[in-house]
Amino acid sequence: MTLEPLLKPRSVAVIGASRRRDSIGGAILHNLIEQGFQGPVYPVNPNATHVQSIAAYPSVSAITGPVDLGVIVIPAEHVIEAATSCGEKGVKALIVISAGFKETGDEGRKRERALLDVARRYNMRLVGPNCLGIVNTDPKVSLNATFAPVRPPAGRVAFSSQSGALGLAILDYARELNLGISQFVSVGNKAEVSGNDLIEYWEKDPGTDLILLYLESFGNPHKFTQLARRVARTKPIIAVKSGRTPGGSRAASSHTGALAGSDAAVDALFRQSGVIRTDTIEELFDTAMLLASQPVPLGRNVAILTNAGGPGIMAADACESAGLSLPSLEQKTVKGLKSFLPPEASFKNPVDMIASADAPSYEKSLRMLTLDKNVDAVIVIFVPPLVTGAEEVARAILAGASRSKKPILSCFMGSHGVPESLRSLQEGHIPSYAFPESAARTLARAVGYGVWRSKGAGKVPAIPRIETERGREIIAKVLSTGKPGPRWMDAESMNELFAAYGVPTNRSRPAVNRGEAASVAKSIGFPVVVKVRSPDVVHKTEVDGVRLRLGSEEEVARAFDAVRTALAREKPNARFEGVTVERMVQGGIEAIVGVSRDPTFGPVLLFGLGGVAVELLRDVSMRVAPLTDRDADEMVREIRGFPLLDGYRGAPRSNVPALLDLLHRVSRMAMEQPNLQELDLNPVAVFQGDAPSVVLDARVRLAPDGSA
Amino acid sequence: MTLEPLLKPRSVAVIGASRRRDSIGGAILHNLIEQGFQGPVYPVNPNATHVQSIAAYPSVSAITGPVDLGVIVIPAEHVIEAATSCGEKGVKALIVISAGFKETGDEGRKRERALLDVARRYNMRLVGPNCLGIVNTDPKVSLNATFAPVRPPAGRVAFSSQSGALGLAILDYARELNLGISQFVSVGNKAEVSGNDLIEYWEKDPGTDLILLYLESFGNPHKFTQLARRVARTKPIIAVKSGRTPGGSRAASSHTGALAGSDAAVDALFRQSGVIRTDTIEELFDTAMLLASQPVPLGRNVAILTNAGGPGIMAADACESAGLSLPSLEQKTVKGLKSFLPPEASFKNPVDMIASADAPSYEKSLRMLTLDKNVDAVIVIFVPPLVTGAEEVARAILAGASRSKKPILSCFMGSHGVPESLRSLQEGHIPSYAFPESAARTLARAVGYGVWRSKGAGKVPAIPRIETERGREIIAKVLSTGKPGPRWMDAESMNELFAAYGVPTNRSRPAVNRGEAASVAKSIGFPVVVKVRSPDVVHKTEVDGVRLRLGSEEEVARAFDAVRTALAREKPNARFEGVTVERMVQGGIEAIVGVSRDPTFGPVLLFGLGGVAVELLRDVSMRVAPLTDRDADEMVREIRGFPLLDGYRGAPRSNVPALLDLLHRVSRMAMEQPNLQELDLNPVAVFQGDAPSVVLDARVRLAPDGSA
Repeated sequence: MTLEPLLKPRSVAVIGASRRRDSIGGAILHNLIEQGFQGPVYPVNPNATHVQSIAAYPSVSAITGPVDLGVIVIPAEHVIEAATSCGEKGVKALIVISAGFKETGDEGRKRERALLDVARRYNMRLVGPNCLGIVNTDPKVSLNATFAPVRPPAGRVAFSSQSGALGLAILDYARELNLGISQFVSVGNKAEVSGNDLIEYWEKDPGTDLILLYLESFGNPHKFTQLARRVARTKPIIAVKSGRTPGGSRAASSHTGALAGSDAAVDALFRQSGVIRTDTIEELFDTAMLLASQPVPLGRNVAILTNAGGPGIMAADACESAGLSLPSLEQKTVKGLKSFLPPEASFKNPVDMIASADAPSYEKSLRMLTLDKNVDAVIVIFVPPLVTGAEEVARAILAGASRSKKPILSCFMGSHGVPESLRSLQEGHIPSYAFPESAARTLARAVGYGVWRSKGAGKVPAIPRIETERGREIIAKVLSTGKPGPRWMDAESMNELFAAYGVPTNRSRPAVNRGEAASVAKSIGFPVVVKVRSPDVVHKTEVDGVRLRLGSEEEVARAFDAVRTALAREKPNARFEGVTVERMVQGGIEAIVGVSRDPTFGPVLLFGLGGVAVELLRDVSMRVAPLTDRDADEMVREIRGFPLLDGYRGAPRSNVPALLDLLHRVSRMAMEQPNLQELDLNPVAVFQGDAPSVVLDARVRLAPDGSA
Repeated sequence: MTLEPLLKPRSVAVIGASRRRDSIGGAILHNLIEQGFQGPVYPVNPNATHVQSIAAYPSVSAITGPVDLGVIVIPAEHVIEAATSCGEKGVKALIVISAGFKETGDEGRKRERALLDVARRYNMRLVGPNCLGIVNTDPKVSLNATFAPVRPPAGRVAFSSQSGALGLAILDYARELNLGISQFVSVGNKAEVSGNDLIEYWEKDPGTDLILLYLESFGNPHKFTQLARRVARTKPIIAVKSGRTPGGSRAASSHTGALAGSDAAVDALFRQSGVIRTDTIEELFDTAMLLASQPVPLGRNVAILTNAGGPGIMAADACESAGLSLPSLEQKTVKGLKSFLPPEASFKNPVDMIASADAPSYEKSLRMLTLDKNVDAVIVIFVPPLVTGAEEVARAILAGASRSKKPILSCFMGSHGVPESLRSLQEGHIPSYAFPESAARTLARAVGYGVWRSKGAGKVPAIPRIETERGREIIAKVLSTGKPGPRWMDAESMNELFAAYGVPTNRSRPAVNRGEAASVAKSIGFPVVVKVRSPDVVHKTEVDGVRLRLGSEEEVARAFDAVRTALAREKPNARFEGVTVERMVQGGIEAIVGVSRDPTFGPVLLFGLGGVAVELLRDVSMRVAPLTDRDADEMVREIRGFPLLDGYRGAPRSNVPALLDLLHRVSRMAMEQPNLQELDLNPVAVFQGDAPSVVLDARVRLAPDGSA
């Protein structure tokens, strides 16, 4: 069912149109009329013959012509009735502005469900309830069905906002910056039309080049990922996601659970999908101003052109700390600049033309820099000195940029957006920033997006030797024993589960007395590790329950006694169920691989090296499952500790492909086994040469269906 | 010599006053007159009888009355002559606007030295050359001796800028935000008057409450530290320091050198001195707007008051990620809020009054929040809905804040600074931000400053058993042998040096053949460590030159051969000088302590835990020497890995006081031994109980005087 009647209606009825311009219903009617909607607008008001000089109808059914869109602005308790009338009238889409639904508690939630039922029954698309409305600046439509007092400029940027209040500020800010909007939708409670529906619509909308999102929650994150991955290849998506506060997150019982909070999952999801995430609305607009007007940068190399040293240095600092580079300029560029700039100028990057620089210097220098092969983008800084006017320089920058295929950003110190004197910049579509740092950070975001887009999309690889059904049986068996509820898997079942997914383990064997421990050790081969077994112990080292490097049967027997004594001492009430014995793995680099099942995003994978680096230093990477080849590769390489696997300080390289294989197998397991709630493989030993990565210790938490 | 004649002159001569208002000399004269300087202004121009309707003098000497301040705006080659005339006339201070000095190369540098000589000869204070000038808004002075086209508003904020061009933008921005300036000084090349001189002056200036600095370089960082530490206790200092680009930093040959770049030293210096560092000019102003008007916050607990959910969430996110907390409100506050806000409002923190909130709700709610004992500061957010006007709410916020001793920040979404409708806020001194995130980040900076100020100043502790002279002798001896130039200290001399400073080492002993190695090991006691000795090897592990845990004479002898073979294989041209043998230290936590001598700041100390955490993850802390007790304590505790020393996962605590003692001894050594260029103590073993921290391996680089 298309969104056309919502976004491009041919006629609109305002149910609750008020005579008072300062009421919400009055403001909406006023905006529709005043901003020239290209079709009839019907005020519906049973208590008035006319509203704001327009003949009013007592009800929707009284309207003679067809109605595409109904805008409902009446108290919540009458909304269902009004929506039903619209359905009977044949209205194709509804915007419900009224509050008093899901956001107010149980009764509101019921009302919202009833509203959705009406919309479905009559095949109406529904935006809201509890929203600000919709804007479409397309001159063929000219729809402003909001109560916002501002009229945003027309352009090619679409915006979906989950906060109505913020929507007001957004429209205001767009006008202040003169950022042209194609369509604006305040989605409110998202009872029916979701952010995903809009992204899908805007993907094909020829009037939209760029998509902005303000999100507070995800409805269907899997669909979002698929959609965003595809759409972001052609139209950049920039998003602010709020609600990062950890306060509400559940208490975590594993490393991975502790580290993989929902916001980390959001970060991972955005990164995987090519969505540009900004921390603030201000940065969202900064980035939109760049991508709405300039080509996507193809590399990290920035040239800076300035008429003052200080701001040039500040821009260089900001570029480097945002991960951009300042390359040397080509010889011919330097020569060219020297031919007309004064000798006191600086011809290194940043190019400082000094305060005497006039408009023609800006034009010529900028053109030369855009032609330099070492340069991917240019930041032009202007500090108004006494002689040269901003307007003149703005025109010169436009002229210098005219044939450039590289992005150009300008910084007119102190001038955010487009003050009147920089109007020409806006017309020529060069974004302007008040401070060099904003320009640099914005460019860095665009470069990150450009890099993402330049790489292939990635695929979830086919993996041999997976026994999904066997995995299910093992998990079902564990869940079927004992009391119902979530539980940690025992070592033997974990080993079987890992075997079913081809995850190599250093298989451990249980022993219930010192004699058995010694003989098991002998059959495994020395040296071995002995670990305490207790259903009441999660971190074995914390009860002093691990003994390493045991070289003989006698040492193993002594270790058995030692961990029993230690357990009794450290945790007197814990049950002692003997020990596990496993071969002592020597060498290798310790990694951690984890899974945490996010209630919204599903399984989130975590990777890091070494316990301390992960737990205290948080040097970890995360991705939402399923992992593509690209995801797995990036997640291993993006941690700061990666050099340890890559021949650090002359050591041989580790077998990274084997580690990637393990990650893919874990990703598959997490996708296929919905009862797997949390998993910590810690440590995983990553070896050199051809050796596979081996799980040395693990914890898996299972939950019966529906009990997270 | 006081700065009074510069900042509060009673008369001013403009040497180079021009008839053309759009020339620099013309603009300065115009500004002086037009902004009502409280004393006579004398244009000096040999080619005119009058300038801008004021009688002109052919030379300074022709002026009949006394002249306090001379402003020189003529081509560089005539400046010395003009300055000399000023000196002879008895002028007490000079501002040299003219460029063409140090910044242009050798000739300019000579000219600048000559200018300084003239100033010294005649006892004149000198600002510049190559600067924008000086502003003093005190109505008793009303001095605008700049060529800036804007007039900043009067107030209590002093500003020193090392960039003239940026100064223009700064004055412009101050006016846009309506941030009141007491004095503004563009220091230019800082030939005579420095930033330090100004800080010292402003410390005692009753018209200045807050000091802002834009710095590109430090003249005398030691004086800056001393001064800032003292001044920041009563007047906040906020600084932007640019020039962070690592490009120009020298190639580093030690861990510490690599990590302790100059910008890290700047960070350390600012932190130690209580200076609030911001990354950008925008943030500098954001912070200034808060501290210029509101009390310094006494804690991290923030209440958020809003009329819209989305911005409230965004503010909460930004607060928590900036290290602030959102406490629960007191019962009585919640009860009070419930008495007049609608039931749909949210009474948790953030308090969301919902869109229907009127101005009186803002006033009452804000007052209640400021009285809540759990709250240290309040951020008030307003998103303009249809009904309530910003102006009305601004006045209500003022009323609600009237008796508060806690800082209050407002965010009128979309309105940066003080648009006309928020003028009342400005008059009541409540800062206003365009986005909740800016308010949160700004508050976090102020909280950091408040925390710094609430702690004692710290002292460099007295340390027993220091043999400074002995240390000098050891270093002199090493430097006197062989070719002149920088060098690495040999192991034996290092051990002696450390002994002179009471730094505990795991003393190693050399052995030149396998037999000697074995017998040395026997005398030390097993287990031992054997390390290759070669003047050509810096990182012994990189040539496979270290063997651990050797338990017998035979193993030691084999290790001798093994490291010789390894050296020949890994670095065939390296000289082999036998091995060192030392006792294998078991247990303990590995730390790194380093010193890097920064050309500007002197010795910078570095601390971190474990090789990988330091090298790859950069989990380190830094301080400029000498360390106070507070510095040392903070530098150990601020690394993310600190829990490892503090009983991590149930392990016993390490002997942190012993580690602090070691840090103080190294700090003392670095301060007293100017030839010590770089030092890596890596690893230092930190033990539990009473055991001292012990240096297990070290590298010290010495440089003869003057050859860094």
